This record gives sequence, C-alpha cells and structure tokens, in this order.
Amino acid sequence: MKKIINKPENFVDETMTGILYAYGNKVTFLNGDKRILIKNTETKPGKVGIVTAGGSGHLPVFLGYVGEGMIDGCAIGNVFASPSATKMADMIRACDYGSGVLCLYGNYGGDNLNFEMATEEVEFEDIKTTMVRVKDDVASSSKENAEKRRGVAGMVYAFKIAGAAADNMMDLDGVTNVVKKALDNIRTMGVALTPCIVPEVGKPTFTIEDNQMEIGMGIHGEPGIEVGELKTADEIVDIMMEKIIGDIELNEGDEVSIMINGLGATPLEEQLICYKRVYEILEGKGVKIFMPHIGEFATSMEMSGLSITLFKLDEELKTLLRQPATTPFYTNYNK
Amino acid sequence: MKKIINKPENFVDETMTGILYAYGNKVTFLNGDKRILIKNTETKPGKVGIVTAGGSGHLPVFLGYVGEGMIDGCAIGNVFASPSATKMADMIRACDYGSGVLCLYGNYGGDNLNFEMATEEVEFEDIKTTMVRVKDDVASSSKENAEKRRGVAGMVYAFKIAGAAADNMMDLDGVTNVVKKALDNIRTMGVALTPCIVPEVGKPTFTIEDNQMEIGMGIHGEPGIEVGELKTADEIVDIMMEKIIGDIELNEGDEVSIMINGLGATPLEEQLICYKRVYEILEGKGVKIFMPHIGEFATSMEMSGLSITLFKLDEELKTLLRQPATTPFYTNYNK
Repeated sequence: MKKIINKPENFVDETMTGILYAYGNKVTFLNGDKRILIKNTETKPGKVGIVTAGGSGHLPVFLGYVGEGMIDGCAIGNVFASPSATKMADMIRACDYGSGVLCLYGNYGGDNLNFEMATEEVEFEDIKTTMVRVKDDVASSSKENAEKRRGVAGMVYAFKIAGAAADNMMDLDGVTNVVKKALDNIRTMGVALTPCIVPEVGKPTFTIEDNQMEIGMGIHGEPGIEVGELKTADEIVDIMMEKIIGDIELNEGDEVSIMINGLGATPLEEQLICYKRVYEILEGKGVKIFMPHIGEFATSMEMSGLSITLFKLDEELKTLLRQPATTPFYTNYNK
Repeated sequence: MKKIINKPENFVDETMTGILYAYGNKVTFLNGDKRILIKNTETKPGKVGIVTAGGSGHLPVFLGYVGEGMIDGCAIGNVFASPSATKMADMIRACDYGSGVLCLYGNYGGDNLNFEMATEEVEFEDIKTTMVRVKDDVASSSKENAEKRRGVAGMVYAFKIAGAAADNMMDLDGVTNVVKKALDNIRTMGVALTPCIVPEVGKPTFTIEDNQMEIGMGIHGEPGIEVGELKTADEIVDIMMEKIIGDIELNEGDEVSIMINGLGATPLEEQLICYKRVYEILEGKGVKIFMPHIGEFATSMEMSGLSITLFKLDEELKTLLRQPATTPFYTNYNK
C-alpha cells in the first residue's frame, strides 16, 4: 500500500484536522467532533440549512463543499462508510437556522437508513426536514429502475444549486423542489482504470488487468456495465456520452454544464482531452456548454479514471449555478 | 501505459484544444498557434507583461495560470520539453503592452537557452524584457550552489506575486524586483512514490520499488537525495521541513504561506494529513500560516507524491498574494 499516511486508523481524523488547520476561517468541527464539519461563518437567520453525509475518501466530496453558498454541514464516517444517525442528527440540529434543513445525499444504503433515523429523531424537536437522494449514475441501474441509481459527482451540482437557492432565502419546499428539478436534469457516467486502497483494509477494492478498463464502475468499485480492453479517449467518451444522452431529452439550442471529474489519479491533461470530445459531440447537436467544471470534484482517493456529468439547464438553474460560492474546494471561478 | 488519451503524438494539441473549448472566455491561442496560450481579456495599457514557458505535462502549471492577476502568456513544448525560442519571442511580442515583459520560468537548460535567444530577438524591436529563473527546489542542489537549483511548485507563488504587482501598474524593474524578493523567500521540496509515463515514450520515466519512496526527486524524475523505504506521513514531512527550514531564516512571529502540492495521483486526504504536520511544526516555532494552498498546482501527470513549498511573507508580499486573481486553475479563494 503506497500511501503517504500515518496509522491507517487515524486516516480520517488526521484528514479532518488538516482541514480545520487549513480552513478554520471557513469551517469548524461541531463541538469538537472530528466527524462533523460545519460552516464557521455567519448565516442569515431563517436561511434553509443544507446538509449532507457519507463515507470518507472522496475529497473534495463532501467536506470540501461546506462553506458560503453551498452546504452548511457534513457528517462523515470512515472510508466508504456511512456516519451514524446520531452524528447526522447533531449536524441537522446545528444547521437549522429556523426554517428547516434539506438533507441532500447520495443514494447508498447506509446513508439512506441513517438519514431516515436522524430526521425522525429531530422531528420531535420541531425541526422540519426534507430529504433528497442524488441518483445521477446512469450506469448503476436502468432508466426503468432509476430509483436504484447511485449518487456520484452530480451531487456537486446539486450542492451548488441548493446552496444558492437557500442563500436567496427560498423556503424549505422551494429549495427542495429546485434541487429535485436540478437532479432530474443531471446524469453522470464514469470509467475506472485502476482501483484504490482503503487504508484500514490495505488491499485494492477490486482488481483490473493492466490493459483493461471498466466503464460504469461506481466510486467504491461497484461493478460497471462493460469491462474491456482500454480504448482511446474519444472511444471512451463516445460510449459514455451515448449512454448519458440516451437517458435525457436533449435538443438543439439547449444549454448544459459539463463536469469532467478526475477520480483521483487521472491527470488534468487527460480530463481536458475528454472534455474536447464532449464539446465536439454537443456542438454537433447544437447544444451549448455553460460553466464547464474540469478537475477533481468527487474522487476515490488514488483511483484512476474519470466521470462525465451532464447538467441540463434552464434560466433559473443557470442563475443559481452562476451565483457566488466560496468553500475550501469550490469557488465560483467561471463567472 | 494506462492513460485515457488518443494518439500519443496528439496529447499536447488535444489538451490545448480542451483548454480553449473550456476557457475560451479567458484565454486563447496566439494566432491559432496551439503552443502559445495568451489571455483573452482586456489588459490595462502600460501594464507590464508576465510570461512563462516550459514543457507540457505539469498542469495546472503553466497554462492554467494564464489569466487575470497572474500571467499573460505561456508557450509550451512537448511533454517535459522546452518550446522553441521563436514561439517564446512571438509570445513576448504579444504580451508587451508598452512597458516591457518579465519572463518568469523554471531553471531548466532548454528553457534558459531559449528564453535567452527569444529576449535577444525582441530586443531589436525595442521590447524591454527581464528574466527571472525560479530555483526553489532545495533538494536539487546545495545552498552554496543554489544557482543550479531547479524550479518547481514555488513558481505558482511567483506567478501570483508578479501578476499582482503588474496589475498594480508597477514598472518592469519594480515587478522584477518584487518577484526576486518573493523567490528569495520561497523554498520547495518533494517526495515521489511512483513515476509517470511520457505518452510518446510509453515507459515510466524511472523505476521505484513497491515499498520505496524517493525524497527530493524532481518533477521530471530527476534523482533526489534519499531513496529509502516508504515512511509515515509525519516522518516524510519532518525530513522535508527540516531541509526547508534549514535553508531559510525563520523566526518566531514570522508569517508564511504553505503550499502542499500533489504531483498527480496523491489524494487530497494525504495532502491534508501532511499539511497537519507542517502546521504543527510551524506552530511549535511560533510561525503563522497565511493563505495555505492545498491541491494540485504543479504535477507530473500521474506521478504519485507531493511537494511542500514554504513562502516567507512580509506585508508587501501578503498584500500581493491576497490580491484577486482569476485564471482557469487559480482563483484567489482564500480571501
């Protein structure tokens, strides 16, 4: 296991301490709890709170998006493991500014169950909550079973939209509805070339031959839809874009944002080469790209590969996407 | 070679096209030349131009810093190879806004030679230039032979300082001097865990055993000062910080900026774990950190490892570092 770490069992705590030391002007631990990160800046009274939760090992997701204009709190568990319902409930309480809290998170068993329990718990304290699950990974289930799809990089767009809507003082139902609308228009698909190693496990999450790739693989190594010989960038993008475009109505004149998300070890150069192809495909369809996002947004530590997210926009979503945000790992740089 | 690319010989051109498609509102090719990227936004007449050049394969260095508040132009060569003097001269001409051009680049043979020729060429056209070489890598040569040191991640701070000084309408000598002062206060050291592959070569740039690391290795695989068994994050940071701090006068009450720079494949979690240790070492010395930079700033494609840069600040340098900048891969997010 070739990692620059100390004791594997301290991986998450030390990462969290690093975040606090680096960004203590923006974020802080809730009551010193190294598994709950909340905003450390002033919040308008009555703003809807936006929270998330999930396993560690995906930075910048989720922690890196706690801050102005995105999410207010994030509870995290061990690597690839959900945090407890108790931690989630503590976080929800801390992020209720009087108008309720939207719980916005990826569609994974542990997170679903724990958020159900956490929201039930705070209900008795008269804290209103809504829950929206991100299910953007088109490779993880068929369109007919879209309810079973996993949440991946598309959640970064969801955080951005929710945060902007809440900043505009929309009420809880309003924020919830606009995020649902955004998610109806978000699709992601990924390809993995190499696995990653969970520090406390010490062995790769899966194996993949030296000349192979897996299209549609999940960010925890969940099986994809096609294992095969490594193809060219253009061929890989074509396969992914065909699947994405086949899942959403896209017409000439539409505007979309595109996120090319490196899974951890994939160079920016390769991401840009893939973006070039995405651009050409969309240009051929008369679809314009607004505010592309290229870089690492939702990773699996040192996994090699990337995902493409398409986010179809209307005027409201464009305005919300464009609105300022400043978090440790997201700045609205494309204004 | 496990890369998401098309033909290796098109690697650089396709990366450049991706940049143009993504950030065409900020940057453009000079006269359609895919090896010269210049700013695409309005420049105040009489501003000093800031340019750089070097080999491809280090994104976000160098191309990602062309934009508002940093550099005005960048000429690039093939992977890890210098661009020609002719391209550099073309770029210098394009980035002269009437007050001369600072050529700010890493201390490598090809880049040195070609910038010498390029500046001589434009001299006949009455374009004033100055040259400043970045030599921040303390592992690449002894303190007595600091002139021979290579330029690595510290150049990102140099771009930021130069860009801000030029934006403040300092003249060419003023910008040159403030960058020299900044560089006198910048030290970097790196550690590599795995090599990278130059696409057209198809084989790793060097070999390193599965349980080994190389401290002080250069970003092109130049030999370091110590090859040994992989140590813990704290041990690695301690070695690097001892070398860095031994190279610069650092006193209680001083302020520094710290850059933790992933070389390509190293997860943000590991970078934060290292940042934690750096913070603790400096705290123990009564040294405060201002505007930490954590992420990938100067990479070697998929190389695994990281570097630490220490930038000792005074009030002038703090003000310049804090000043706004907006480029495709740098936004002054830590205001």
